[in-house]
Amino acid sequence: MLDSFGLEVLRRDECVALLSAVNVGRVVYTRRGLPAVQPVRFVLRDEDVLCGAPAGSALFAAADGNVVAFEADIFAPDLASGWYVTVLGRAAELRNGSVAAALPDLSWRPRTDDRFLRIPIEVVTGRRLG
Amino acid sequence: MLDSFGLEVLRRDECVALLSAVNVGRVVYTRRGLPAVQPVRFVLRDEDVLCGAPAGSALFAAADGNVVAFEADIFAPDLASGWYVTVLGRAAELRNGSVAAALPDLSWRPRTDDRFLRIPIEVVTGRRLG
Repeated sequence: MLDSFGLEVLRRDECVALLSAVNVGRVVYTRRGLPAVQPVRFVLRDEDVLCGAPAGSALFAAADGNVVAFEADIFAPDLASGWYVTVLGRAAELRNGSVAAALPDLSWRPRTDDRFLRIPIEVVTGRRLG
Repeated sequence: MLDSFGLEVLRRDECVALLSAVNVGRVVYTRRGLPAVQPVRFVLRDEDVLCGAPAGSALFAAADGNVVAFEADIFAPDLASGWYVTVLGRAAELRNGSVAAALPDLSWRPRTDDRFLRIPIEVVTGRRLG
């Protein structure tokens, strides 16, 4: 199915499969009333996006407990093909210690106070080009 | 200079130079009170981000006249190196016909009602890894 702009609309399972194949995305949130965005390393676990966030970061402070968007994409260099997927969900700190202990390093620079944010895939939309 | 998370802080001129070397970014805005994000094709002109937006798109409706963020990044597949740059600025429709006429195609799928958004680089921040 094509949307009104001529892009292929992806199903939820297609979006989830695409997200599981990449390792970087962007958390989109609101900071002091303004749009904000932070690239993050992430993994998918049981249809939750799990990403790293230093405890003292603006991302962690603003996202924990709030609805955020999460986006990932891949485009060919010539932009003739590619896809993008956007998730909406209420972010929360991942407090399950056994799940956290099994995660790979997800910070840009590992620190002892690193935390994880969990973004459940409550709403997901995706488009494919080419 | 490193930030408190160990990432190299980029100067404004470095951020602008990096943005000028890529062709896809993401406009981050607020839609119905929720964070939203739309990947776009863009070019840089005189320190303005110019991106394509179909006239009937949620992006165009929500961004025109409002402060938005714009993000671009490149990361190595192993995430050992890379950079990301984020712009804040008040988006407005590009109404300068001669500038618009000289732009390349910036929509994912060209349409006759395509518009351009102009996002001035009012605030820019960037970080480099590795």
